[in-house]
Amino acid sequence: MESDYGIPRELSDLQKHRSLYQPDLPPCLQGTTVRVEFGDATTAADPAGSHTISRSFPHTYGQPLAHFLRATAKVADAQIITEHPAKRVGIVFCGRQSPGGHNVVWGLYSALKIHNPSSVLLGFLGGSEGLFAQKTLEITDEILSTYKNQGGYDLLGRTKDQIRTTEQVNAALTTCKNLKLDGLVIIGGVTSNTDAAQLAETFAEAKCSTKVVGVPVTLNGDLKNPFVETDVGFDTICKVNSQLISNVCTDALSAEKYYYFIRLMGRKASHVALECTLQSHPNMVILGEEVAASKLTLFDLAKQLCDAVQARAEQGFLDISRNALLFLNSPTDSVYVLIDKNHGVILIPEGLIESIPEVYSLLKEIHGLLRQGVSVDKISSQLSPWASALFEFLPPFIKKQLLLHPESDDSAQLSQIETEKLLAHLVEVEMNKRLKEGTYKGKKFNAICHFFGYQARGSLPSKFDCDYAYVLGHICYHILAAGLNGYMATVTNLKNPQNKWRCGAAPITAMMTVKRWAQNPNSSFIGKPAIHPATVDLKGKAYELLQQNAVKFLLDDLYRNPGPLQFDGPGADAKPVTLCVEDQDYMGRIKLLQEYLDKVRTIVKPGCSQEVLKAALSSMASVTEVLSVLSTPSSNGMNSL
Amino acid sequence: MESDYGIPRELSDLQKHRSLYQPDLPPCLQGTTVRVEFGDATTAADPAGSHTISRSFPHTYGQPLAHFLRATAKVADAQIITEHPAKRVGIVFCGRQSPGGHNVVWGLYSALKIHNPSSVLLGFLGGSEGLFAQKTLEITDEILSTYKNQGGYDLLGRTKDQIRTTEQVNAALTTCKNLKLDGLVIIGGVTSNTDAAQLAETFAEAKCSTKVVGVPVTLNGDLKNPFVETDVGFDTICKVNSQLISNVCTDALSAEKYYYFIRLMGRKASHVALECTLQSHPNMVILGEEVAASKLTLFDLAKQLCDAVQARAEQGFLDISRNALLFLNSPTDSVYVLIDKNHGVILIPEGLIESIPEVYSLLKEIHGLLRQGVSVDKISSQLSPWASALFEFLPPFIKKQLLLHPESDDSAQLSQIETEKLLAHLVEVEMNKRLKEGTYKGKKFNAICHFFGYQARGSLPSKFDCDYAYVLGHICYHILAAGLNGYMATVTNLKNPQNKWRCGAAPITAMMTVKRWAQNPNSSFIGKPAIHPATVDLKGKAYELLQQNAVKFLLDDLYRNPGPLQFDGPGADAKPVTLCVEDQDYMGRIKLLQEYLDKVRTIVKPGCSQEVLKAALSSMASVTEVLSVLSTPSSNGMNSL
Repeated sequence: MESDYGIPRELSDLQKHRSLYQPDLPPCLQGTTVRVEFGDATTAADPAGSHTISRSFPHTYGQPLAHFLRATAKVADAQIITEHPAKRVGIVFCGRQSPGGHNVVWGLYSALKIHNPSSVLLGFLGGSEGLFAQKTLEITDEILSTYKNQGGYDLLGRTKDQIRTTEQVNAALTTCKNLKLDGLVIIGGVTSNTDAAQLAETFAEAKCSTKVVGVPVTLNGDLKNPFVETDVGFDTICKVNSQLISNVCTDALSAEKYYYFIRLMGRKASHVALECTLQSHPNMVILGEEVAASKLTLFDLAKQLCDAVQARAEQGFLDISRNALLFLNSPTDSVYVLIDKNHGVILIPEGLIESIPEVYSLLKEIHGLLRQGVSVDKISSQLSPWASALFEFLPPFIKKQLLLHPESDDSAQLSQIETEKLLAHLVEVEMNKRLKEGTYKGKKFNAICHFFGYQARGSLPSKFDCDYAYVLGHICYHILAAGLNGYMATVTNLKNPQNKWRCGAAPITAMMTVKRWAQNPNSSFIGKPAIHPATVDLKGKAYELLQQNAVKFLLDDLYRNPGPLQFDGPGADAKPVTLCVEDQDYMGRIKLLQEYLDKVRTIVKPGCSQEVLKAALSSMASVTEVLSVLSTPSSNGMNSL
Repeated sequence: MESDYGIPRELSDLQKHRSLYQPDLPPCLQGTTVRVEFGDATTAADPAGSHTISRSFPHTYGQPLAHFLRATAKVADAQIITEHPAKRVGIVFCGRQSPGGHNVVWGLYSALKIHNPSSVLLGFLGGSEGLFAQKTLEITDEILSTYKNQGGYDLLGRTKDQIRTTEQVNAALTTCKNLKLDGLVIIGGVTSNTDAAQLAETFAEAKCSTKVVGVPVTLNGDLKNPFVETDVGFDTICKVNSQLISNVCTDALSAEKYYYFIRLMGRKASHVALECTLQSHPNMVILGEEVAASKLTLFDLAKQLCDAVQARAEQGFLDISRNALLFLNSPTDSVYVLIDKNHGVILIPEGLIESIPEVYSLLKEIHGLLRQGVSVDKISSQLSPWASALFEFLPPFIKKQLLLHPESDDSAQLSQIETEKLLAHLVEVEMNKRLKEGTYKGKKFNAICHFFGYQARGSLPSKFDCDYAYVLGHICYHILAAGLNGYMATVTNLKNPQNKWRCGAAPITAMMTVKRWAQNPNSSFIGKPAIHPATVDLKGKAYELLQQNAVKFLLDDLYRNPGPLQFDGPGADAKPVTLCVEDQDYMGRIKLLQEYLDKVRTIVKPGCSQEVLKAALSSMASVTEVLSVLSTPSSNGMNSL
């Protein structure tokens, strides 16, 4: 097996060119000293869950934020680490491959060697299975040479995305002890970073000296919170998908006879679909978050799509306000337009199917029965009457897909469920009906379905992802040098140029929430603390941008082609639209707040005038009162972030 | 409808950058004079068909080749055209959109205006339907500005790809007369260029002064003959598909658990699949031409795929020579290798399904019944016992797809038939059987299927396609300036830099062949003359290159990622591998031959010595004897080119 990994390989001219690209480091990571400043102790985003989280993570909950500073920065409290004993660090890929992952390995390797050439980086072969079985490859310059700035996870490979059972956690512990690792770096998304936090806690409990560090790498873009602005791979995936969506838009406009239904990989949340919409301007996108918020049924959805198709097809004036749903994301202004179009492009996130309330209930029943060991061919007869009615109505291909066993995170096998075909089918049936009844007078509806996922995942990473991943790799070293355990490497202020990036680390537990749900009316169940996938914020600026343009996108075919991913010239330095429109920089603001508090403390030192003290007390009293009110636990803690 | 076309639109940064790109012209097209040299009268490639063709095309068969020369070239016989009266020219997109099509319009427009600013270019809106209905858009600088070097056919649109029935031909004739066109340029593939030849003949017969010109633009790359080295769009399509195939290869190697079955758009021939294989190095490709030549059945194919999967999966030594088919394109050397792989990438041309003999027979029966008006649900009961047995064996989704009505060129609806799913299904069934029987001991076989077509067709064209199309557009003007009718614009020596490109024109009838087939043992049927899609030449250099590497590709995972289409830096100037390995330049050689013949005539002028004359006679006698033998009609005329 081992011989598969890390072998040199033939690179194309472009791959060679990319392999020579050297990302810049922000000033705070340059040089050979590590300078760290600690902030206040962290809490969990959802105050209501903090007690549960602190109980589950007694050793790693409540640790302070860490900021890495340039050696010359004037910060009195910052700790300067100048001695760098040789370290032994392990690194492992977990979960779906995401473009840029290799650069985390390279960045960490490079930082280790800069600070002490005797340090060793061991890559675990074949993902978590390699971690359990102690299968390693020592990373060297030679091995890295054909993997720098390249896509995929094939340098080390990956298998399952779980390090969760007692057996698995113990195997990881044994490996880290046997290999005498000072650090273990886990590259992955929400699930893998939750596992990393658990591992860090277990290691601390077991007095194992290996520190565990997580890195946010997931094409889904759903590891998103105040500390993490975006994930490695998301930019590339959205660029590759947008290229293809735009090509399909051009195709639709050239032949003018097809509706393209395109499903996009990205798990439960609709980040990829939203970003691609803002890049390519297809006619419609159905965000899972909107459907869930509006509690739309499958039939509501199909009807809305049909109304949109009909409106585009029939020459005449269309009153958008009467057509309440044209489209979900459009405000209901009265707009009159003249159109006559028999083509279109519709984006569908793979997680949509789980966002449709009645389908979600059906899936829960099916998964429950599967867990009870009911065989697949007996399930339909054991469903509740209501779920059974829905199930029997669905076309056979979807039935078969809904019956698949759920994934390790309890969600359905989203990549295998062809929601785009289901919707196209329902729309076709309804449009044919309308055509027959004479209520629709346009041309016959023709759909072509696509699923874009696997063809993007292995792409050469964009410049942004190369840079971001490389910098995160360096930060992993800084975290280990500072002796931190259970932290995630973070870079904020990402929408600005690289020399303005803020590098730091946040305790993974500070990103966790606890889900509650009622299994039956009399009991409520409290889940395990975990990082949950962030959903698209329906109050955020990116969504607002979509809403502002939804009617124009639907009716005017404002297709835009960002083109294939470029590494030179225009477009090469583009960053995700959703990243750039948001006003994030949470870490920067936390630091600024700390500075204000320090300033107050400096001004109001014992010995200051009575007046100053009074003024300070009265101002701070009102500030704390306002903040107490604002911070009262609410039921939807995640959304208020 | 008109308002859809030619409207200015928002371009992305990269699109804007591309819209400013100005392709170079070869020296022979520069300046304001047109210089044309005529070669010998042309014949048809297949001598046996030439009589039929000359009878069908009395006005346009046997015309000479035309070469366009630089104004300063020392060629005595060349005709120099310095007067350029204003011309009115129409242009129309026919058939599948192919990246670069817009640049033919731009090139022609630019040449028209350079030679006489009063000339007018009319684009037909909505393809051939616009031609029949006289719907036009006058091309201007402003209209072109956002379409230069851009993909799709959305500047003018396209509909059906046929100009064939008497009614259609007459409508086109009326349009050309009414609009007083000096020329009509048809942009398309084999079908559209055959139609162009027919239109030219009809116009000549009807004494209509409109000259018809064809341009080889088809993503399939199957309009290929001694005069046409490649088609506009083929390079882009192969680059975009290769990018995606390579991404999937990286994906396969990262997760090591899937077999990807990828079907590629490209009609009957396997040019796209062959080119993509040489660019991306997937594990296998099944060329339709190989299957047809070896008369492999569906079950042979499935078995071969299973043997390949098993060989890759089972650790141990594999004797390739015993495994006769590993793979079709591999020579049967004894090769012993150690492997253990549960992933792979397999390419399948969309035309494969028609190349499998028994499926082809089944399709012929179905299409015959459909043509007789038998309804779809009754067809299975009216099939011959043999065809029926095959049909009933197939999974339901394929049955439904095989029952679709044939396309205008009588082939099945290849884009709609999911051959990749059929093969993956057959392999899965067989592998599960082997697993159960214990003859296969590897991991469970998992397949993921893709069809790459629509997402590539609308791509921004590659630099090569931009240049080639723009130059072809200029040549169209030169053809019209020389007063030629029924010609196709040609560029040869394409693998060399642009300043070495040879520009010319060849009568479309010289590219035609006549197909014969026996409908029953006693009668043989002679088809209409047409340009037939060129198949992959199993004796050609490109195929030889594949054969040399097939075993390595299959076993060693030599995946190569050409990366996304680039417009700057490494890879931006790459041309198709299949174009570069072939030693074509037929037009150059024809010219060289003419020069030799002229030289003989110059040396052996009346008055030369008896000895020189004798030597000339004896040499020429033996030359003509050899050539007579070589040129004797053979049954497979096309292959001997």
